[in-house]
Amino acid sequence: MSSPLHTGLEAHFAALEKFLAAQELAFEPEVRPMVRDALAHPGKRLRPLLAFASGAGGPPPDALVRGAGIIELVHLATLVHDDVLDGADTRHGSDTPNHTHGAHAAVLFGDALFAHALVLAADHPTPELCRIVARASREVCSGEVCQTFSRGHDDLSLEDYYRHIRLKTAELFEGACQAGALLAGYPSEHIKSCSLFGRHLGIAYQIYDDLVDLLQDDTKAGKTLGTDAASGKLTLPMLLERDLSGKGFLTTLRAGGDARQLISAPAWRECFRRLDAEIAAAEQALEPIAGSPSPYFLLRLTAFLREAAARLAPKG
Amino acid sequence: MSSPLHTGLEAHFAALEKFLAAQELAFEPEVRPMVRDALAHPGKRLRPLLAFASGAGGPPPDALVRGAGIIELVHLATLVHDDVLDGADTRHGSDTPNHTHGAHAAVLFGDALFAHALVLAADHPTPELCRIVARASREVCSGEVCQTFSRGHDDLSLEDYYRHIRLKTAELFEGACQAGALLAGYPSEHIKSCSLFGRHLGIAYQIYDDLVDLLQDDTKAGKTLGTDAASGKLTLPMLLERDLSGKGFLTTLRAGGDARQLISAPAWRECFRRLDAEIAAAEQALEPIAGSPSPYFLLRLTAFLREAAARLAPKG
Repeated sequence: MSSPLHTGLEAHFAALEKFLAAQELAFEPEVRPMVRDALAHPGKRLRPLLAFASGAGGPPPDALVRGAGIIELVHLATLVHDDVLDGADTRHGSDTPNHTHGAHAAVLFGDALFAHALVLAADHPTPELCRIVARASREVCSGEVCQTFSRGHDDLSLEDYYRHIRLKTAELFEGACQAGALLAGYPSEHIKSCSLFGRHLGIAYQIYDDLVDLLQDDTKAGKTLGTDAASGKLTLPMLLERDLSGKGFLTTLRAGGDARQLISAPAWRECFRRLDAEIAAAEQALEPIAGSPSPYFLLRLTAFLREAAARLAPKG
Repeated sequence: MSSPLHTGLEAHFAALEKFLAAQELAFEPEVRPMVRDALAHPGKRLRPLLAFASGAGGPPPDALVRGAGIIELVHLATLVHDDVLDGADTRHGSDTPNHTHGAHAAVLFGDALFAHALVLAADHPTPELCRIVARASREVCSGEVCQTFSRGHDDLSLEDYYRHIRLKTAELFEGACQAGALLAGYPSEHIKSCSLFGRHLGIAYQIYDDLVDLLQDDTKAGKTLGTDAASGKLTLPMLLERDLSGKGFLTTLRAGGDARQLISAPAWRECFRRLDAEIAAAEQALEPIAGSPSPYFLLRLTAFLREAAARLAPKG
């Protein structure tokens, strides 16, 4: 998700980068270079965007910028640990802490980054922000544990798949929206609408990400694809094809079969239909607050995801 | 530190175990066995003891039990990660999550356990408990990063050594005391006295732990000792001997020399003198609240540590 989505929120993102850069000084001198590295190569800042869009309307209040920054720090902490667990040496074209400082320091640094996010959340006058951030973080990690345990389990149910991606991805999306609307001072109806949007967008985004791994050219994605099947991770298109044609399909796929050939047209269609349904549910969640500034920004995200999915869909 | 130290606080510890056991249900079904395992083999519950002693006086209020449990969960989360980083298969005679479930799931489980502690802290009516817990956690991890980076650096200053152990060990001791006194409703003078006690006891305890690694028989300690020197970790007796006799000593020690032979009597004496000074500073911190129930319980800890140190001191 690229910068046209930031249009109209430039002041928010400028304040965010300033806030994030200032966090370096909260750490011990030995740890500061790691903080600098982690912040120097921004990703899509997708979660801050959700917070800003959910809290849009006028210039960004300080509390909103802090909230968006806290959510991003949690996300960065999970990436630091993911890179250790995947043994990844680069991300966004730069060396990972795992590569530069080794797994030992990287695990501890991820912990410190996450704890620092909670220190910042505790500066909010009420414990509500801590609750949102801590709960979302717990669910993200729990979802990743569940997914790790489910690898190679060919009888994973669709219900469990949805629960795992809700935890792993949608909870932090939801937390970002909730924190954004809360910190901008919106009433509870607005907070609820944005939260529900975030939950459905998160599920849609994860299904999209699963599809990218199977369908997109490596050159476009900027990362190694097709890794899910090889690692025993079961994603939605695979589960749908399994339910259509039986478990033998998963064995063939894992033996190195090409997913584009092996997954049938009805399974792909059902997968894209489910992705569309989540996008539609996200949009529907915003109906109670139609006319407020938040839907203006949030609906750009669903439009963007819908177009990206259309470009991905196999012809025919 | 064993159970005579718990005398008079039995109701507190009974409530604590009940509280900790109940946490399992806050996790996804797949994660619950890991929670059960992590809680099944209690260590010394030293940090809850600090919280209970700092908040002593009458039966334990619920908030105090929760606070002590939260601090213990943070400690358990750091142990889960430590065991991954050390590749440890057993702790307290039981299999570690790292051994049972692999490093991947264990890192994520440690994250989830830590996040859950913060979820619980956010249930407190004010953000103060989140602040104490998050800050102490950040410092513990920062201290471990610093110590990791300092391995093999023969010019580590005494100041940096003290800063590292304060972060790594004393911050969570201090947080436990602070949370305990706060949650029992004590006034700020009491909170401050207990916090300062925790800080000095934490430094003393870490120096003692460093001495155990060099001086105690393996059979008594129940873990592999003498590992600090081999891994390039510089502890206080080594730094003091280096300052007396020069860096060549560290090279000899690392090459497998016996610390008991290589470290001179004046260096040992200075190390025990510094340990005594921290114990005395801890005790002195309690003077403003002499006569309250907290010193009664806290001073048992310094007495216990002083006796343990005396048993360790080399003869002559």
